[in-house]
Amino acid sequence: MSDLTGLSLPGIPDRLFIRGDVPMTKEEIRVITLSKARLEPGMVVWDVGSGTGSISVEAARMTPGGKVYAVERSPEGCRLTSENCTRFSVDNVEVVAGSAPEALVRLPRPHRVFVGGTGGNMKAILEEIKVKLMPGGRLVINAVTLETITSALNFLKDGWETEIVQVSISKSQLMGASRLMKAYNPVFIIAAWGWS
Amino acid sequence: MSDLTGLSLPGIPDRLFIRGDVPMTKEEIRVITLSKARLEPGMVVWDVGSGTGSISVEAARMTPGGKVYAVERSPEGCRLTSENCTRFSVDNVEVVAGSAPEALVRLPRPHRVFVGGTGGNMKAILEEIKVKLMPGGRLVINAVTLETITSALNFLKDGWETEIVQVSISKSQLMGASRLMKAYNPVFIIAAWGWS
Amino acid sequence: MSDLTGLSLPGIPDRLFIRGDVPMTKEEIRVITLSKARLEPGMVVWDVGSGTGSISVEAARMTPGGKVYAVERSPEGCRLTSENCTRFSVDNVEVVAGSAPEALVRLPRPHRVFVGGTGGNMKAILEEIKVKLMPGGRLVINAVTLETITSALNFLKDGWETEIVQVSISKSQLMGASRLMKAYNPVFIIAAWGWS
Amino acid sequence: MSDLTGLSLPGIPDRLFIRGDVPMTKEEIRVITLSKARLEPGMVVWDVGSGTGSISVEAARMTPGGKVYAVERSPEGCRLTSENCTRFSVDNVEVVAGSAPEALVRLPRPHRVFVGGTGGNMKAILEEIKVKLMPGGRLVINAVTLETITSALNFLKDGWETEIVQVSISKSQLMGASRLMKAYNPVFIIAAWGWS
Repeated sequence: MSDLTGLSLPGIPDRLFIRGDVPMTKEEIRVITLSKARLEPGMVVWDVGSGTGSISVEAARMTPGGKVYAVERSPEGCRLTSENCTRFSVDNVEVVAGSAPEALVRLPRPHRVFVGGTGGNMKAILEEIKVKLMPGGRLVINAVTLETITSALNFLKDGWETEIVQVSISKSQLMGASRLMKAYNPVFIIAAWGWS
Repeated sequence: MSDLTGLSLPGIPDRLFIRGDVPMTKEEIRVITLSKARLEPGMVVWDVGSGTGSISVEAARMTPGGKVYAVERSPEGCRLTSENCTRFSVDNVEVVAGSAPEALVRLPRPHRVFVGGTGGNMKAILEEIKVKLMPGGRLVINAVTLETITSALNFLKDGWETEIVQVSISKSQLMGASRLMKAYNPVFIIAAWGWS
Repeated sequence: MSDLTGLSLPGIPDRLFIRGDVPMTKEEIRVITLSKARLEPGMVVWDVGSGTGSISVEAARMTPGGKVYAVERSPEGCRLTSENCTRFSVDNVEVVAGSAPEALVRLPRPHRVFVGGTGGNMKAILEEIKVKLMPGGRLVINAVTLETITSALNFLKDGWETEIVQVSISKSQLMGASRLMKAYNPVFIIAAWGWS
Repeated sequence: MSDLTGLSLPGIPDRLFIRGDVPMTKEEIRVITLSKARLEPGMVVWDVGSGTGSISVEAARMTPGGKVYAVERSPEGCRLTSENCTRFSVDNVEVVAGSAPEALVRLPRPHRVFVGGTGGNMKAILEEIKVKLMPGGRLVINAVTLETITSALNFLKDGWETEIVQVSISKSQLMGASRLMKAYNPVFIIAAWGWS
């Protein structure tokens, strides 16, 4: 995989990941999401709803000496996350098969938490995260449905500091001899911290 | 078709049109595009690349006593444009089967011109429009490819006044129990006038 | 005002309205908002938070024989709404000075309701609208703050049908010899109906 | 500056930079722009139109053992770039006061080039970059005006491979008791490589 040379910085191109039918955080969204987490070496990170594992892989590379727990309920997502860790030679990710919030209960307390796909349990998941997040910790939620956006905003009303960014991306794609600007669905990236 | 009652104003819902595999100007883009043309009763209108005919149908309803020439090279597009005129009881649209710019040569001079899909002949089409557009006329281009955008902007450099708007739309769509905000491709709506 | 000739269709250019420091619904957003209301002649329309009156003026022109109640709590907004009605020769708008929901109580039941600026009373305003909206009526909310979006979505959970569109516009603006694409703030346009 | 601790990864918050009236690449745009460059240690980087120096500072931190040439014609931009290098303890940036393309002529050949503000000389600047870019090099252009977009796309027609992304960001901002989603102007991020 010579085309991976030098890709130690965030922003691994989407096409380098092994993908199934599982939704994937696009590279442009991923680099913003990762930057909002303010990752540091040695940190414990939860990636709730890891999907293909693209966030887990990049977060693991950005936290040497740390550990990323990739929580994913679909067997295909678990398999893809593992395969992508192997593909990018990442050895500090532990795939946790199971549904959140139940699967979160036995994990070590995190410094950073990413929340992506949640299967509709957002409120319960955020309650568990609130209990476990380390002092000074940060939570970054990627929301693409109205339900996730409103659940997250309703939950974060009291006692959290937040920064909310909506990102809309379109990317050139050949269509005959022309390049169509193809839109990706907009993502709300909600960073939260300061809860105590 | 009782659900059409009262829909004499622009913004006919997309789902009410008969559609094939032909691309369609979405209703939110369509109402902006139509408003930029400043249509008036009795006008001659060209709709170059009419597709399903959604712009032609609405323009025809907004120009009583006028005439809309729907120029379309694909047989399916011609058929859909005709069927949608029937569906919405519009009788002032003439479907012109053929490729622009050739198909434009024999048409009456227009007060207003819409340009949508152009099959890559943008420059020649705009040259023909420049020759034929009536004094005080307006041209409205919907561009979704980089090639159309740059051709249009390069062409409109000299002697035209322009207003350029980019519109990005996303619309709620049920995905399980959640509503995904699904993005449509962004459209540049380029209005031009004042050439003489 | 010869430049108004023929502007009987929606999409009056922003620059033609008399404006103060009051926020204004931009013309591209306005035409979409109006189209979602499916206005018809003779209807009773509420415009809650009329601001400069741009929605009221256009809605009034689109509902001949009907009546638009422009509810606005700021004296400057009331004055601008009145001045713009005069400017566009609209005589079926009544400016209602006062805060919603109190100011809504004594108004005739509406067929259509627009909600724009609400000063934070969204929930109480929507409760009043739910009580008064005529059977078969439609409600169209323009939301630019997270608070308005979440209040509206929380309120509309039960028993309403909704269509939610987010619109992002950028418009060319001269900056030296170049044209900057200047962004307007994104607007959620929430159409709701079917409550009974 | 204890709040800088740990910020060795890209995405330094905008508010940490010293800013004047000079336009600045917002952090969300910046992390995408940087990721598209595929920076590696030891590289020579040009930042043409460095503005506040935010791209130069981050690129310098991402290319240890390399060198970033921050080319900027405004005295205030030069001063801000220097001050921000000091603020973030970056010592591998050289500020080059002068206008491109003239100021580029005497610089070492680059592995990577960022092009931001260009003062309208885009074509001449790109010609110079084409001559000097090292084999295997990458060029990343941030374009916010129609003139820059069309110049760049016209120039890159022949012999380059490109990836073009448009990014629209809005960010929450307190407005009274509500949070407005405030839009930033959309940016085209054009990555080009493979020219030989």
